[in-house]
Amino acid sequence: MDHPRISRRRLLQGAGALAATSGLGWNATLAQGTPIASPFPSDSDTPLSLWADGTVRTALIDFVTATTTEGDPSYLDPAERIAVFDNDGTLWCENPLYVQLVFAMEQVHALFGQHPEWASEEPFKSAVEGDADSLLAQGDYATLTVMNLSYAGLSPDKYIAIVADWLATATHPTFGVPYPELVYTPMVQLLDYLRAHDYQTWIVSGGGVEFIRALSEPAYDIPLNQIVGSTIETEFSVQDGEPKLTRIDQVDFIANGPGKPVGISHSIGRRPALAFGNSDGDYQMLQYTTAGDGPRLGLLLHHDDAEREFAYDRDSIIGRLDKGLDDAAAHGWHIVSMKNDFVEVFGS
Amino acid sequence: MDHPRISRRRLLQGAGALAATSGLGWNATLAQGTPIASPFPSDSDTPLSLWADGTVRTALIDFVTATTTEGDPSYLDPAERIAVFDNDGTLWCENPLYVQLVFAMEQVHALFGQHPEWASEEPFKSAVEGDADSLLAQGDYATLTVMNLSYAGLSPDKYIAIVADWLATATHPTFGVPYPELVYTPMVQLLDYLRAHDYQTWIVSGGGVEFIRALSEPAYDIPLNQIVGSTIETEFSVQDGEPKLTRIDQVDFIANGPGKPVGISHSIGRRPALAFGNSDGDYQMLQYTTAGDGPRLGLLLHHDDAEREFAYDRDSIIGRLDKGLDDAAAHGWHIVSMKNDFVEVFGS
Repeated sequence: MDHPRISRRRLLQGAGALAATSGLGWNATLAQGTPIASPFPSDSDTPLSLWADGTVRTALIDFVTATTTEGDPSYLDPAERIAVFDNDGTLWCENPLYVQLVFAMEQVHALFGQHPEWASEEPFKSAVEGDADSLLAQGDYATLTVMNLSYAGLSPDKYIAIVADWLATATHPTFGVPYPELVYTPMVQLLDYLRAHDYQTWIVSGGGVEFIRALSEPAYDIPLNQIVGSTIETEFSVQDGEPKLTRIDQVDFIANGPGKPVGISHSIGRRPALAFGNSDGDYQMLQYTTAGDGPRLGLLLHHDDAEREFAYDRDSIIGRLDKGLDDAAAHGWHIVSMKNDFVEVFGS
Repeated sequence: MDHPRISRRRLLQGAGALAATSGLGWNATLAQGTPIASPFPSDSDTPLSLWADGTVRTALIDFVTATTTEGDPSYLDPAERIAVFDNDGTLWCENPLYVQLVFAMEQVHALFGQHPEWASEEPFKSAVEGDADSLLAQGDYATLTVMNLSYAGLSPDKYIAIVADWLATATHPTFGVPYPELVYTPMVQLLDYLRAHDYQTWIVSGGGVEFIRALSEPAYDIPLNQIVGSTIETEFSVQDGEPKLTRIDQVDFIANGPGKPVGISHSIGRRPALAFGNSDGDYQMLQYTTAGDGPRLGLLLHHDDAEREFAYDRDSIIGRLDKGLDDAAAHGWHIVSMKNDFVEVFGS
């Protein structure tokens, strides 16, 4: 399907190259980057045109309309219009492996020479051996430890620049394109639609906050300060009169499962009105969101589209969706079918 | 000096009463509260009218003008217009004690019956005994532990409501008015001025993020999600089918001294353009801010006004400003004289 969005590949390559060659920090580069033109018709024409007619599209439009129409009993003050989105598997492709895990396993392999202890210490042993299944079988904490600890010792800005360069060139094993091409365009359209109605859009992800900062502005138009992610300890020091921040080798906070509402509370300070996830790691975020008084909307993206993406749910190690499928109806959450609700999946 | 700002006392009492008697969370109450009308003339009339003519006022206006005028070599993209402010002693009065410490010592005293171990365990022992000097002599960590751990076991929303009720009634020992009346109106005017030029204004404070949320919107018009503060561990649980967040009895993060640039990196993800503090606890925040490339401005408020507020600096336990005074010139930071640069201190 033809889609006039500026190529993310081109955008990221350009920005990555700039960051690598100029004295500017990557953040400055991103901020100075070409703004992404909105590729979608105005709301009054066809809201959510990349969403198929059906229950989900209607629910989204009705919710946004009601909460933003003065006088409607569901009207929300703009300060309360907070929408939170998981990243992996909700905004972009997470299969066959979380993108940050692919990156981290490559880095662990490259840095193994400096860490001989990794040969025998899990979870790094599995990562060194390239055995993702073994790593994932050790659970979320082990996986997120490898994802978040790679490249300790760098400044956040340097780490983000390295991630951005990697994202510009590394390609997905099945689709053969750089990962930022595998953002779900209907979801990007939904983010735009929400912001056009004065919703703040936030990412709340178990992934590392600084990994996500390498793509949040160009891919989603989400600013660097609207990301609740996992963090590693960071140290401030002054070297030769120059103040420095350094990522150090210790998990600080993991924003997955019950960590999602906790991170929302610490960083946003307000219960969201809308939460969108895709796995049981998002369960508590939806639960916390939709238990609030007033209008609330919870949605889970169901990966049921083997033809255009992947089909997986209850038995998948990546993005397992099991309890969420069982309990969605009781909570009033919408199960979004990628197969039926997405007019297109990716932009190309 | 006559000042048409809506009375903060009235605003907080009204909101506190609502939060106490309605089923609404405090956040919802705040969001629905009366918006504060801007009491200041438009920029083209008299920018920063509550600031005396002089170096500091000129520096502020020149900086904001240059960084927001397209074509100026110092022009900053709006995404880079981040201004960070300390709270205690920078935006409101911190003497003779940090407001949150007054609150916390009252709570510790009230809760002592449930914590007999506090009779012998510092830093609580000093707090129980009402001996602020002894507590402060134990240093930042001990002080912040008492400040941030009081009222563990409550939800963040309930805690914020209790703080707001307390703020509406407790009075300052010298000035005899509720603490929110002791916000520095020239600083509030500066926040307004910056936002009118598309600056994001953030609080970065060693105080607890949820304590500050009880006043940030009515007092400063700073939203709940633009506060980097100290946090205590928070737990997610489900009780009788109801998801709950609970503040638990363990410090998570202390956003003071070197913690300020770390908190800025985690939450904002971008080096600020402007940093304003008043004590050596803000030193690293200013250092990190002004070491960046491009236009940067660092300022320290010097409490030299014994007549209208207090005079203290190098020898004060509260808000000690010593190293900052020594090094300001070398760093190019402005020392702001409360006595000479503030046309008025408080609104009344």
